[in-house]
Amino acid sequence: MPQDKDKKDSTDIRMKGFKEKKDVVDFLNIIDEISASKKFEVVCLNKAAGRVLASSIISTVKVPNFNRSAMDGYAIRGEETFGAAPYSPLDFKVLGLSLPGKPFEGCVTTQTAVRIMTGAPMPEGADSVIPVELAQEENKVLRVIESIPPGKNVGRIGEDVKIGQEILNAGRKLRPQDIGILSSIGTPSVSVIKKPIVDIFITGDELLKPGSLPKGYQIVDSNSVMLDALVYRDIQIHPNIIFLEDRRELISDALSKSNADFILVSGGSSVGQEDHAPSLVKELGEILIHGVALRPASPSGMGIINGKYVFLIPGNPVSCLCSYDLFASRAIRRFSGINCELPYKSITLPLASKISSMVGRMDYVRVKINNGFAEPLAISGASMLSTTTIADGFLMVPGECEGYPSGEDVKINLYD
Amino acid sequence: MPQDKDKKDSTDIRMKGFKEKKDVVDFLNIIDEISASKKFEVVCLNKAAGRVLASSIISTVKVPNFNRSAMDGYAIRGEETFGAAPYSPLDFKVLGLSLPGKPFEGCVTTQTAVRIMTGAPMPEGADSVIPVELAQEENKVLRVIESIPPGKNVGRIGEDVKIGQEILNAGRKLRPQDIGILSSIGTPSVSVIKKPIVDIFITGDELLKPGSLPKGYQIVDSNSVMLDALVYRDIQIHPNIIFLEDRRELISDALSKSNADFILVSGGSSVGQEDHAPSLVKELGEILIHGVALRPASPSGMGIINGKYVFLIPGNPVSCLCSYDLFASRAIRRFSGINCELPYKSITLPLASKISSMVGRMDYVRVKINNGFAEPLAISGASMLSTTTIADGFLMVPGECEGYPSGEDVKINLYD
Repeated sequence: MPQDKDKKDSTDIRMKGFKEKKDVVDFLNIIDEISASKKFEVVCLNKAAGRVLASSIISTVKVPNFNRSAMDGYAIRGEETFGAAPYSPLDFKVLGLSLPGKPFEGCVTTQTAVRIMTGAPMPEGADSVIPVELAQEENKVLRVIESIPPGKNVGRIGEDVKIGQEILNAGRKLRPQDIGILSSIGTPSVSVIKKPIVDIFITGDELLKPGSLPKGYQIVDSNSVMLDALVYRDIQIHPNIIFLEDRRELISDALSKSNADFILVSGGSSVGQEDHAPSLVKELGEILIHGVALRPASPSGMGIINGKYVFLIPGNPVSCLCSYDLFASRAIRRFSGINCELPYKSITLPLASKISSMVGRMDYVRVKINNGFAEPLAISGASMLSTTTIADGFLMVPGECEGYPSGEDVKINLYD
Repeated sequence: MPQDKDKKDSTDIRMKGFKEKKDVVDFLNIIDEISASKKFEVVCLNKAAGRVLASSIISTVKVPNFNRSAMDGYAIRGEETFGAAPYSPLDFKVLGLSLPGKPFEGCVTTQTAVRIMTGAPMPEGADSVIPVELAQEENKVLRVIESIPPGKNVGRIGEDVKIGQEILNAGRKLRPQDIGILSSIGTPSVSVIKKPIVDIFITGDELLKPGSLPKGYQIVDSNSVMLDALVYRDIQIHPNIIFLEDRRELISDALSKSNADFILVSGGSSVGQEDHAPSLVKELGEILIHGVALRPASPSGMGIINGKYVFLIPGNPVSCLCSYDLFASRAIRRFSGINCELPYKSITLPLASKISSMVGRMDYVRVKINNGFAEPLAISGASMLSTTTIADGFLMVPGECEGYPSGEDVKINLYD
């Protein structure tokens, strides 16, 4: 029996309880050793937003490649407008038209102008554009009533991008406008950090698959769909979801054979006798941390098997959410090269009632916002997912803190 | 010539300039008349995160459906532990084991206990669970050294969800944990607001398609890929991108035949002679606003053609970004039933140098953050997309404000 094999190990903590729980910051420090993946892939521009550049982008072209009008109006020689005013207008002969992509082929000479649209090439000879609002044209004669300095309303060659200019750095998470500028310099695709492959192992013989109705002593699994949505939120690809019976050899086999970068094991992470995952990680690789001074989610842990990061995530759904957000999410984000901080917007609000917390343990407290106050819902109730759907957000009470009095300003991370 | 047809209309503003520019708030008020779409669709749970519920969800089941242990430990009768202490331990005979999904079939009677794991059904007769950390088992005898009150560490039937409980409201944007709780009550799929169909018309004869190298008097279009990424950011589906020559009949045809909910017309939105879009919207439907007291992006506008919302977006790329974020994005988000505010995180920082702004016009100012100060980069330069890639964010100077002195605390919206 594989269960017995492991019982000989005197460090097995199953049915003994955690000897020591590490601080949350110790766990975070271990995660922060993880660096961004060195695996890259090339993606087209229309798939590149949100991705992280593998290397810097240097422009080989000028944008624009010609002087262009910044307004709809008339291209003229600016110094010839000097003195123009409503009661002493100056007239210019309109020679023709310059449109974007369709330049005027001639030359602007003394007392002449060319009608020009925004973005159109400046005709030879002209050095400024008088906006349409400040001019009147009739019978091919332009009447100017205001002077305009040379150079005004003209976009110069290379004003946006110069040759040799580093326009985006390696490690940059690409914004929509970055995709725009990449397009403007003629880049069809970019090399970006490859997204991690994430496997999610769902263990627990009491679990029915999502889509089932709960019956008898079985409950319907919620962690698979929740973790799926959380991983998708972080890296915009769905993880592989694998349901496993609580059998040691099955879980061992799955841990060994996975080709993922991250394996998240939901359930079986604690000190119960069916909790195989921690000892299996130790057996197959190295366990870096197991047991955290955190409520809920204390049976969280992490290890490495053949270069694969394994996160032990408690089966209780609130613990699962808390453990994923605090630990696995941070690791997956670091590996993906993106900001690893909690992805929630935050606000500061006064507490509606006091929070008591044990010194030495961090607490994840769900709160509801009522009339500008944050009302603590629950510290315990790790099995009650409804506390996280009723809540508007959560706050963390640090380990060194014994809680907060009513009225204290606290930082709330807003769900969603 | 179709260009001529429209010239007879005395309200045509092409080559005349805007007679009047509306305030940004007027535009926002028009957008805020748009309500969430009444078109719904049914999606599976693993596609439901981030979607907006069409109707409220009432549970028809209890979660859990049985009393269960909240800890790994031993199920006992709490009152029998009264008086237990390290120097006066109490012993209980261990009758068997209750595992999640595999309950103990017998009954806990006087001086007996059942080994139990987190989530396992409570055996008949037992009313509390003594955690494994506070107990010792040897030869099927449990030694208890601490008393525990009845009911302790037991999760009651329906503690998470009760029958008839409204667990999520219509209009709720589904969070990962919401998907979890939907799964736990046996919901396989949900009815959600259908995402809008968005068409993007890219006009401008000077434009080469993305993937081309800029050459001669042509520039490579950046708005299509940028708007694609922006729309995807907002609704997680790619819009349809349609490139159109600057020919009035082509644009007219495309506006008439589109079956989108939103049409964003990039370019040709101003007062130049090739700017067909505003007059076409007027001809085919109704123009609600055109010309905004905003820099950049003043040639923004909006209209309705056969129930389709048409947004006029300036072709200059910075104006395009600004106009999309302020106007089209808000409308698309409202229609999608999600939060319509700007999707950026914000911080308050002091200005590194003063900003001057014209009263009566709102300014979109890109800023770079240096040593805790916000350094204004540019108000003008609508054609220079690099100002938005160098910037860390932007601030809005309201119309009634003539700017801010150096050192003034301002709210910065952070790109990304």
